[in-house]
Amino acid sequence: MAVFTPSLENLIDKLASLPSVGRKSAQRLAFYILGMSSDSVTSFIEAITNARASVHKCGVCCNFTDDEICPICSSKERDNSVICVVEDPRDVIAFEKTHEYNGLYHVLHGVISPMNDISPEDICIKELIARLGDGTVKEVIMATNPTVEGEATSMYISKLIKPLGVEVSRLAYGVPVGADIEYADEFTLIRAMEGRKLL
Amino acid sequence: MAVFTPSLENLIDKLASLPSVGRKSAQRLAFYILGMSSDSVTSFIEAITNARASVHKCGVCCNFTDDEICPICSSKERDNSVICVVEDPRDVIAFEKTHEYNGLYHVLHGVISPMNDISPEDICIKELIARLGDGTVKEVIMATNPTVEGEATSMYISKLIKPLGVEVSRLAYGVPVGADIEYADEFTLIRAMEGRKLL
Repeated sequence: MAVFTPSLENLIDKLASLPSVGRKSAQRLAFYILGMSSDSVTSFIEAITNARASVHKCGVCCNFTDDEICPICSSKERDNSVICVVEDPRDVIAFEKTHEYNGLYHVLHGVISPMNDISPEDICIKELIARLGDGTVKEVIMATNPTVEGEATSMYISKLIKPLGVEVSRLAYGVPVGADIEYADEFTLIRAMEGRKLL
Repeated sequence: MAVFTPSLENLIDKLASLPSVGRKSAQRLAFYILGMSSDSVTSFIEAITNARASVHKCGVCCNFTDDEICPICSSKERDNSVICVVEDPRDVIAFEKTHEYNGLYHVLHGVISPMNDISPEDICIKELIARLGDGTVKEVIMATNPTVEGEATSMYISKLIKPLGVEVSRLAYGVPVGADIEYADEFTLIRAMEGRKLL
């Protein structure tokens, strides 16, 4: 005998298929949804369908936006001579939170990963190259994740960009601010030593 | 400047309003939903609307079901002389997983809680009393949670049932199986001492 009634079981299955939602959380969410007011459920479903319908990639930087061109790309106050290349829209948020970087972004939506069958054509590389033709952009900062795939993607893109006469830089590696050196992994420490600066 | 585009922000807000979903998880879920295939999104939304439309309380035990009467209540193989009274449909699952209890259930859908403005009329007590009229049920096992409110609800219901000539029992309290006595709280230990049995 199924433990839950079929339609409830189906809802739990669907919720459990979401990332980082386990079976127990899915049960809790399902019971919560059953107990929600009809209005709340309607606006919840509308939020999903609206987001799916409205959100698309910015025509310039490929970040998610409701508009043709995202607010960062269309802003007059950003420094359009520098582009920070990230893997994911959430990385843009991370940099924006620093309130230090005032340039533009480019979102790749992934990294090159032969293991997962993701080739350079599957991520937004050609859109990046298209932005570099007219000489406005002087520097591209590669800010992919410090993983093997992030590194490889960064190297691949830098080889495409250098012939265009645009500078390419990479985020500094090192010990995270506030971290305990005792617990830093060896690769981070090696990079931190290599990147040491004179005081 | 809003960090995310409005429709995405709205979806994240809605997801973050679900229980045990924080802002970061809501962001991850929202991006996941944006990346889902249209078919998956449709079937996800259908699962919500179907569950909302189909699931209702069993006419006998008040557990959630798609049918008029739930599979447990309509089963010929269950012992219909005993009813286990629980707070929540998930508690039914917990008992069913033991594969030991073969009686029926009654789901209260909450506990009496003056603090939260929940009175006896707000939970399924009258439906329980209605099941006890014809002499079929010999025993009611109170299996509300061992909390102040669970206790109070259990006491309240037992006072209603006893005059009907039906036995009322309560789950045993004690040290959980596999637990470390060193870490058991004092109330549990007091109850475990009180409930000790001769070997």
